[in-house]
Amino acid sequence: MHFATNLSEIEALLKEDVPYFDLTSSLLELDTLNVEILFSPRNPVTVCGSEEAEKVFKLLGAETNMLKQSGETAKADEIVLKAQGKAEPLHTGWKTSQNILEHFSGIATRTRAMVDSARRGRKDTEVCGTRKHLPGTKSLSLKALRSGGGYPHRLGLSDSVLIFSNHYNLLGGIETLCRQLPAVKARCPEKKVSVEIESLAHAVMAAGAGADIIQLDKLSPGLVEETSKQVKKVNRDIIVAAAGGINGNNAEAYAAAGADVLVSSWMYVGKPADYKVTIRKI
Amino acid sequence: MHFATNLSEIEALLKEDVPYFDLTSSLLELDTLNVEILFSPRNPVTVCGSEEAEKVFKLLGAETNMLKQSGETAKADEIVLKAQGKAEPLHTGWKTSQNILEHFSGIATRTRAMVDSARRGRKDTEVCGTRKHLPGTKSLSLKALRSGGGYPHRLGLSDSVLIFSNHYNLLGGIETLCRQLPAVKARCPEKKVSVEIESLAHAVMAAGAGADIIQLDKLSPGLVEETSKQVKKVNRDIIVAAAGGINGNNAEAYAAAGADVLVSSWMYVGKPADYKVTIRKI
Amino acid sequence: MHFATNLSEIEALLKEDVPYFDLTSSLLELDTLNVEILFSPRNPVTVCGSEEAEKVFKLLGAETNMLKQSGETAKADEIVLKAQGKAEPLHTGWKTSQNILEHFSGIATRTRAMVDSARRGRKDTEVCGTRKHLPGTKSLSLKALRSGGGYPHRLGLSDSVLIFSNHYNLLGGIETLCRQLPAVKARCPEKKVSVEIESLAHAVMAAGAGADIIQLDKLSPGLVEETSKQVKKVNRDIIVAAAGGINGNNAEAYAAAGADVLVSSWMYVGKPADYKVTIRKI
Amino acid sequence: MHFATNLSEIEALLKEDVPYFDLTSSLLELDTLNVEILFSPRNPVTVCGSEEAEKVFKLLGAETNMLKQSGETAKADEIVLKAQGKAEPLHTGWKTSQNILEHFSGIATRTRAMVDSARRGRKDTEVCGTRKHLPGTKSLSLKALRSGGGYPHRLGLSDSVLIFSNHYNLLGGIETLCRQLPAVKARCPEKKVSVEIESLAHAVMAAGAGADIIQLDKLSPGLVEETSKQVKKVNRDIIVAAAGGINGNNAEAYAAAGADVLVSSWMYVGKPADYKVTIRKI
Amino acid sequence: MHFATNLSEIEALLKEDVPYFDLTSSLLELDTLNVEILFSPRNPVTVCGSEEAEKVFKLLGAETNMLKQSGETAKADEIVLKAQGKAEPLHTGWKTSQNILEHFSGIATRTRAMVDSARRGRKDTEVCGTRKHLPGTKSLSLKALRSGGGYPHRLGLSDSVLIFSNHYNLLGGIETLCRQLPAVKARCPEKKVSVEIESLAHAVMAAGAGADIIQLDKLSPGLVEETSKQVKKVNRDIIVAAAGGINGNNAEAYAAAGADVLVSSWMYVGKPADYKVTIRKI
Amino acid sequence: MHFATNLSEIEALLKEDVPYFDLTSSLLELDTLNVEILFSPRNPVTVCGSEEAEKVFKLLGAETNMLKQSGETAKADEIVLKAQGKAEPLHTGWKTSQNILEHFSGIATRTRAMVDSARRGRKDTEVCGTRKHLPGTKSLSLKALRSGGGYPHRLGLSDSVLIFSNHYNLLGGIETLCRQLPAVKARCPEKKVSVEIESLAHAVMAAGAGADIIQLDKLSPGLVEETSKQVKKVNRDIIVAAAGGINGNNAEAYAAAGADVLVSSWMYVGKPADYKVTIRKI
Repeated sequence: MHFATNLSEIEALLKEDVPYFDLTSSLLELDTLNVEILFSPRNPVTVCGSEEAEKVFKLLGAETNMLKQSGETAKADEIVLKAQGKAEPLHTGWKTSQNILEHFSGIATRTRAMVDSARRGRKDTEVCGTRKHLPGTKSLSLKALRSGGGYPHRLGLSDSVLIFSNHYNLLGGIETLCRQLPAVKARCPEKKVSVEIESLAHAVMAAGAGADIIQLDKLSPGLVEETSKQVKKVNRDIIVAAAGGINGNNAEAYAAAGADVLVSSWMYVGKPADYKVTIRKI
Repeated sequence: MHFATNLSEIEALLKEDVPYFDLTSSLLELDTLNVEILFSPRNPVTVCGSEEAEKVFKLLGAETNMLKQSGETAKADEIVLKAQGKAEPLHTGWKTSQNILEHFSGIATRTRAMVDSARRGRKDTEVCGTRKHLPGTKSLSLKALRSGGGYPHRLGLSDSVLIFSNHYNLLGGIETLCRQLPAVKARCPEKKVSVEIESLAHAVMAAGAGADIIQLDKLSPGLVEETSKQVKKVNRDIIVAAAGGINGNNAEAYAAAGADVLVSSWMYVGKPADYKVTIRKI
Repeated sequence: MHFATNLSEIEALLKEDVPYFDLTSSLLELDTLNVEILFSPRNPVTVCGSEEAEKVFKLLGAETNMLKQSGETAKADEIVLKAQGKAEPLHTGWKTSQNILEHFSGIATRTRAMVDSARRGRKDTEVCGTRKHLPGTKSLSLKALRSGGGYPHRLGLSDSVLIFSNHYNLLGGIETLCRQLPAVKARCPEKKVSVEIESLAHAVMAAGAGADIIQLDKLSPGLVEETSKQVKKVNRDIIVAAAGGINGNNAEAYAAAGADVLVSSWMYVGKPADYKVTIRKI
Repeated sequence: MHFATNLSEIEALLKEDVPYFDLTSSLLELDTLNVEILFSPRNPVTVCGSEEAEKVFKLLGAETNMLKQSGETAKADEIVLKAQGKAEPLHTGWKTSQNILEHFSGIATRTRAMVDSARRGRKDTEVCGTRKHLPGTKSLSLKALRSGGGYPHRLGLSDSVLIFSNHYNLLGGIETLCRQLPAVKARCPEKKVSVEIESLAHAVMAAGAGADIIQLDKLSPGLVEETSKQVKKVNRDIIVAAAGGINGNNAEAYAAAGADVLVSSWMYVGKPADYKVTIRKI
Repeated sequence: MHFATNLSEIEALLKEDVPYFDLTSSLLELDTLNVEILFSPRNPVTVCGSEEAEKVFKLLGAETNMLKQSGETAKADEIVLKAQGKAEPLHTGWKTSQNILEHFSGIATRTRAMVDSARRGRKDTEVCGTRKHLPGTKSLSLKALRSGGGYPHRLGLSDSVLIFSNHYNLLGGIETLCRQLPAVKARCPEKKVSVEIESLAHAVMAAGAGADIIQLDKLSPGLVEETSKQVKKVNRDIIVAAAGGINGNNAEAYAAAGADVLVSSWMYVGKPADYKVTIRKI
Repeated sequence: MHFATNLSEIEALLKEDVPYFDLTSSLLELDTLNVEILFSPRNPVTVCGSEEAEKVFKLLGAETNMLKQSGETAKADEIVLKAQGKAEPLHTGWKTSQNILEHFSGIATRTRAMVDSARRGRKDTEVCGTRKHLPGTKSLSLKALRSGGGYPHRLGLSDSVLIFSNHYNLLGGIETLCRQLPAVKARCPEKKVSVEIESLAHAVMAAGAGADIIQLDKLSPGLVEETSKQVKKVNRDIIVAAAGGINGNNAEAYAAAGADVLVSSWMYVGKPADYKVTIRKI
């Protein structure tokens, strides 16, 4: 998986934590010591951010050695990244690197768990992350999602067609939408048209009107299963996406219920992965 | 509380979700409808982000009405923000605004809970948020922290002096540091010098050497209480900061144990506040 | 159509032409004169950029009056935009505004012509603009495309699946791809999968393997017609996209041949629309 | 010729096309293949953009080999740039690099043709490109202009003095301007003062008043010749610039008519150069 | 004089001083007080930066009243700018505004003094500021220069032709340059060609070779007078620029010596203007 | 001392001087010459900016050799930086590098002088630079301050607590503030609270109320000495900061008077260091 972060974005992350210099290391006059810094997770993780963490140290003039790429698995205590250099620049980059590794390995690890859970339910159900990551973190949040085996649900509003109930209620309701759907589809022939649905009857109606994807919001696995069967009778190629409250615990059940896609924000929020950081003289 | 976010940062957040245009609204030809959009939390919250959410809609040409400022409390179903305009630009700004409100009201609400809990333990213990927010979100994360009554622990490495064990282990250990501490303090007379400590004995040694703040890492409330008493015997003005695993549940206990400051990352991570969004014709 | 350009992007465009001040107007001491500036096309156009041109003058402190929005048609000599203010700031914004209006109205007008031509061939063929606009101009180029009634083909590499011959030749050829296609499709259930094809036989093979879109590169209208018929026998919902050399002159023929989508870069390149600019005392 | 583009600008161009990752290559799991990519023009070109295209691949971690610098000529099928690496990052950078090379080599090649044509008319007539390139592309557009042997006419409004008829009409007409011209010249002694002129009589008047450059707007080559003779009688060092409708076909005639400078926007607009891109396993 | 600073630049200046919030005002709980802030110079100044200072307060939500524009003169204690609002945002903008006003009014005031001095020596000698302002401050430094009646000497390396001795020494010396000068001039017919000169003999040689401007580096007023006479015998339209050590004290002498242009960095460096800032309840 | 400047900031500084290319070097066709450029101060300096100057040349493709780091002393004529490459890119980077070295070595050298002077007065008095550097130059201004042995007084408004008379006058005067001070201090237990004071009586009152730092504004050394004695009787750990008119000449006197900190803007303003630049063929 190739997912590059711009140097200027990495510089901005470092600047956020160290706008000018590391006052403590400067006061302690650490700049004559040669040290190495090592990052290893305290528990097994799916790594994300090792390329960015490495670039932080490269920008600071250190020698680096990245042992795990984003997307790889690291066992507890396995070293993911090493850097060598003067103690002052290594302390300068320490927390920015750790923070990147911990937050985004956390997202990647939860995504991986959810993908694995979904695959136990059904071998080809995909896990897609929503737009509801923290504002301002899309680039690394999507990298973490991919690192864990998930895909973006939609990048944002400009790239895909997802008709929410808010939309069709303004138009006059689901029936009005269904009448307009063929015309809408003709205007975006290269896109699948997804319709958010809250009941079985509406799902069948939308499937009949040509929706490519039925996104089921907050239905139980049982209702997903029933709805999935009904809509696939109408169009065997239709995609059933389950959304709303999908998480690592119920992913298997929703997948087993026949959902083709699990749409979730669950992986974005949770405890960061815990990395042990060792700094020692060399 | 005044905490302004740059227009160019808000434009960047909107661009992250809508790099070009809202394809779905455009395909549905919503641009002739006049609508209003209303945001209200489903549960009581401490609001954060209403100024930014309002600016999103202003940038999109809508009329706005902000009913709750960041830092204010909103009851369930109380309206925090309204905007009026054409359906297409309001849909364009919908999720960016909601995402800002939900994530940062979540942080503010957890901070508020933690501050209230700490105050139950001791009336003047302060809650300070660490640097371990999501990389790239410092500005809004600190606004959320302030909205909930907390303060930043340190903005980053350039503004404060916090000597971690990583630092003094490189120097030769806590004793070496203590010998050097008076000289270090003289170099930064306008700053308090904080020393991270893992045991009672070390705390007393650092207090004796002139540390202004003893930051106790992962000590139990009982040990915090004992340590606090001992170091305040050495210097009654010393500040005792408890860090490592402090959260909304144990804040009261740590405050009651005598900690002057609770240093925590707990508020940064957790479920976003849930806002109901209503879009309706006017 | 709502398609907002960030203030900071408009400031950057103005800065590109006027990094510091308008030396000529300054030397001529024009700053005491009150003037108005009027923009009108010399020939009929589909307008694009009037919102941005207006914001240029607003940023310079002028009063403005926008008479035509992007996407509207303006007749020869019809006034699209007026601004009033001191002669020096109006001269400062003159060419930046004119340049935006001329280049992007040019793209919008060519797109409109191509869409109209395609609709004469077939009433629901869509015109989609490629990624081959000038580097650095995607935002305004896509706005121009939409203003003329076209849609983006793909925003870039991150939002859509288009398998070029370069891709499948690396995999071992079209047959290898076709064997892998079901698995690829399962990995992106919310996306249509498009395959670039250079012959009828390959098109039928890809259709059989489940391609959602067949993109025909540089085939004659006759071959497009024949291919379209064949692949729609395999899958009546398949989308046929014609690409490579499609332009305003042959759009009707390709649409009449049955192409659902015309994929083109033709609109991006050509003479700018010609706007007359009048500056006069008031 | 040295004309560097900032790394952060190149990162922005790549981000425009690939905001996050290359979805297609990722789905096809191309990341294990080692490939090379080769760029060669299908027709002879004056190269522009090879340094930037090379940096795109360097940023993506590839090994590169640039065989033609901007400003050099490449024959049909001559290789301008090679890069080697994993198939996924090379696909990621493919179209951004190609798009830079094609658009800006197109401008360079047209400039070169126009310069060569002008030199056939008169050996020391210079070709200067206007400010009417696409907004947002000045840096690469001017690099392309220089690559083709042209020079910028003016970088923008802040660096040079060009008095248009719009200016002097506000002042009261050409006669008023001519009375003020000595004072204007005294205010900018390090700059040449250019006056846009639409008739022979006005040209002679402006020359007499001390204009350093007479810019003739939309005059025929015959009128340029006559005007040039007349104004050079007044001041043999005066510069005659021909502007308005100058292009690759009439450059020779205008140069032969005695114009010292051809001011044109013609090179900025036209078909991109066509580069063949080969991607193959290594 | 119109010289606009981008909103995003002003936001960056404010962010430089107040990255997040005003901690002191927040701790003092000033946000309920309504106050006004007034800026007046303690000594007479030529104002620069009042537009930017006003925008700082507008961005912070205050009501503003700008009484002196950049370029105007303010007497001691005359009010240049007022703003009204809550005490916390006014304190937030206080020092950024004051710092802009003080530094750039300082440059403007020194420039004004130098222009006045030069005009006493000769009524039409111009004062031009070099590129040697503080790196990163060109925009406001040039605005200050213009506010004081000066002009930029060159904006940078891309807009003008100034041949330093470093240049021609590489070519083989002044004689070699003089032989090449006609060809160089022919390549840039719209620009004046300036040659830096260190002796009378070289000045006469360069004038004879066609230099448009002779820039005399570190010559005494006496030598400037002698050189000026000699080169104007060769070419009465030649411009004599005096550079190197020109300041507010010797400007009159150099102007009286016949220099057409005084090229100086002197105005960029010196004590900031001193503004009194009053904050009071309303 | 480690104090890194972002690549993107250095690119911006270079772009400020050379937005597109070096016109003069281009016209002189210098690009075939191999040259070296050498920077050495004409007088002894404390170096600042050599890392940034080196990166300017690296970005331009030159080989570099930095002989003095920021913070080191260079004797007159000692070489601080060398770069080798083609004449055109070296001329492109010449003045940007020189300007960085000259302005910021000037600040560093003045800071060094002030620190040395202060230390003669008292061996552990610290020199702290204010926020009153030129707007937009904080990063390099603080680097220069550190290079000369000084420290930042406050980075800005967000990181420290300094109560000016403007603040407490709004609250009702110094007495009101003193009553509130214990509560204010409790809200920021990790910060020292500084109070600006204009008289001895107020100083003693603030010391009694718990101020950690007394900042004496524009008091004579004699008054500083007297005040210092008095407040240290109240609290022997209190810090006395002298501000307002402190400079290189009186630093020793203020330090000898017992000030713990000298707060000054003096070092930010003054003549740049003078660097000789040699460019010669190799």
